[in-house]
Amino acid sequence: MIALLEELAQATPSKILLVVLDGVGGLPRTPGGPTELAAARTPHLDELARRSNLGLLTPVAPGIAPGSGPGHLALFGYDPLLHQVGRGALSAIGIGVELAPGDVAVRGNFATLREGQVVDRRAGRPSNEENQRVIAQLRQAIPEIEGVRIEFFTESEHRFVLVLRGPGLGDRVSDTDPQKTGVPPLEALPLGEQPQDLKTARILNLLSQRIQEVLRSEPRINGALFRGASLRPEFPSMTQIYKLHPACVASYPMYKGVANLVGMQVLPVEGEEDAPEGKLRALQQHWEEFDFFYLHFKKTDSTGEDGDFDGKVAKIELFDQLLPELLQLQPQVLAITGDHSTPSVLRAHSWHPVPLLILSPYLRPDPATRFTEEEAARGALGQLRGLELMPLLLAHAGKLQKFGA
Amino acid sequence: MIALLEELAQATPSKILLVVLDGVGGLPRTPGGPTELAAARTPHLDELARRSNLGLLTPVAPGIAPGSGPGHLALFGYDPLLHQVGRGALSAIGIGVELAPGDVAVRGNFATLREGQVVDRRAGRPSNEENQRVIAQLRQAIPEIEGVRIEFFTESEHRFVLVLRGPGLGDRVSDTDPQKTGVPPLEALPLGEQPQDLKTARILNLLSQRIQEVLRSEPRINGALFRGASLRPEFPSMTQIYKLHPACVASYPMYKGVANLVGMQVLPVEGEEDAPEGKLRALQQHWEEFDFFYLHFKKTDSTGEDGDFDGKVAKIELFDQLLPELLQLQPQVLAITGDHSTPSVLRAHSWHPVPLLILSPYLRPDPATRFTEEEAARGALGQLRGLELMPLLLAHAGKLQKFGA
Repeated sequence: MIALLEELAQATPSKILLVVLDGVGGLPRTPGGPTELAAARTPHLDELARRSNLGLLTPVAPGIAPGSGPGHLALFGYDPLLHQVGRGALSAIGIGVELAPGDVAVRGNFATLREGQVVDRRAGRPSNEENQRVIAQLRQAIPEIEGVRIEFFTESEHRFVLVLRGPGLGDRVSDTDPQKTGVPPLEALPLGEQPQDLKTARILNLLSQRIQEVLRSEPRINGALFRGASLRPEFPSMTQIYKLHPACVASYPMYKGVANLVGMQVLPVEGEEDAPEGKLRALQQHWEEFDFFYLHFKKTDSTGEDGDFDGKVAKIELFDQLLPELLQLQPQVLAITGDHSTPSVLRAHSWHPVPLLILSPYLRPDPATRFTEEEAARGALGQLRGLELMPLLLAHAGKLQKFGA
Repeated sequence: MIALLEELAQATPSKILLVVLDGVGGLPRTPGGPTELAAARTPHLDELARRSNLGLLTPVAPGIAPGSGPGHLALFGYDPLLHQVGRGALSAIGIGVELAPGDVAVRGNFATLREGQVVDRRAGRPSNEENQRVIAQLRQAIPEIEGVRIEFFTESEHRFVLVLRGPGLGDRVSDTDPQKTGVPPLEALPLGEQPQDLKTARILNLLSQRIQEVLRSEPRINGALFRGASLRPEFPSMTQIYKLHPACVASYPMYKGVANLVGMQVLPVEGEEDAPEGKLRALQQHWEEFDFFYLHFKKTDSTGEDGDFDGKVAKIELFDQLLPELLQLQPQVLAITGDHSTPSVLRAHSWHPVPLLILSPYLRPDPATRFTEEEAARGALGQLRGLELMPLLLAHAGKLQKFGA
């Protein structure tokens, strides 16, 4: 399918705006009640839904609750079963750390150890400033191990990213994070017999010891747990496949990371996630430079993961207030959907399909009147898979030629 | 996909009950009229449908009318295009005959021959007792051919199972059943050049002759026709893929056979197919021991195959009366569907999708109010393929972890 799209795609001046409301799909709080989307007061979305086409989108496959990585890759047209990204690579790219071929990125958690055992896997959730202070200390103390350069980067709170740069490193290595307290950190083990995996495992184990020595006198941040060691994956770019010039407008590292992996230009966004004016300004300022925009909102997911039904409703309503200004940009094709559902009753990502809205000049009559799960289920777009979204958007934008004679 | 499920599946205490109403999908008797499901009086199913999610399930692919084997394999998550089971192996396993690797099972029909020609392909449908008498005679007379052990087993009426046990046997061999009368039995031919197929074909042809000699003085049962020679297929078990501890509650051999092939424990069921109390008792007695139950009802299919619209309606109503007791078991996830449609106007399996009902704690609002083809078509589950059912059931039961970060 990607080969076919690569053959049919053509560059045109038309613009596509893909809005991803993270985890927007939901469930009723009580059986038979409204979902978060149905409970929200969304006059602008309602008005838009009445003149759009709706459908339900299953990001990966029925029953599969995708993480943000696989969910977004599917939306961008990359089969997440074929295009897997390690957690470490995703985090590194997300905070703007360049990964060269052969570098190994690892996701780190600062932890509190007591007599060799993990007592807090998040070291009491330190502030970003505290994280930065400790990272500076580690950079100073551990520049390399066995000729492999060790780089430390603050992510946020207890999270940091580790990049190993040196020859002959592999990424098939087990985590040292035991995922529970009351036990010591695990030993990193090579998953297989490859010498490069053995080398990475050895360095991670030495590093784990060195970090404990350096942070010996810290009261809380006195250990580190490693997860998701991974090389940078190599994907064909959206420009190569779709002939697009794509840009990303997002605040959170992980989403910028995925966008970077598929070749989007990640635009700088000012301000807080909850004050979306910065995103609007980024879109407006760069509107003439690109023909595909991925606009990401995180808080519909975070509130769902917190089990905060009303909070999620409020975030949906916040987006609704932003909508008139988005529409003023007048993209040829506007799509609004999610990368997965995060029902607040589940406090987690779920397998349920997400509503999809498409506004374009080429729409069928559609009985759906609101951007809700129930209305989307009877929309003119029917039921789609995540991978099917990009070809549809390209088609509505006039960017796909006829297949065959 | 199976590899992904194997990675994501986790054992939990929650229980899944999958009810298969064989061939339950139907068609109107007259254009515009109700289908069998719509005509049935089903107060309990109606009440259940109002608080469940419905959808339409295409067991294999649009246009494909599956046999019971492929239909069930798809429901259990095994692609029936990749997992083919010969008729002989299915019958053998279904009547509890152990097949070892290398054994070849064959489905036999007793037939009436006159001057070398088949005059009745079912030998006047003898009683099971008559079948047993003849089988005993054959066991005595033909213990082996060319060092290959020959075993005969009564299935029912004119049906029996033949198992060839010996070295170097293949199963790519044509049938001797000509599928019509007025012609002689066919010769078994190897399908290809493999010496093991040649050997099986030779033994079947010798056996066909020997059976006619032994039964020479019988008035009706004086010949045998062979179909579906097959080795036991080796499938990964549901325990391996899904981490389930699955049990089968069924009366008919074929369904027990398929369940056994995918690693279910086949529970003993007392009583007649039409008196489903035995099945209920089996479920109740073993409810604590397993976390997945496959419960099969045959008569919705048999009545459809008989062209008996009212009879099929009655069997649906019989199931409806059983429903309250099933619900008392309180599975976390209850699914009701069919392995294919058997519209009584067609008197045969058909390609039409079957209704699917899922009851779980994690349901979306759903406008469908009855378990009928028409209502299921507007249900919240949309249109699904057979292979997509198991991941969905596992997800609703909390047995699938998130895919990726």
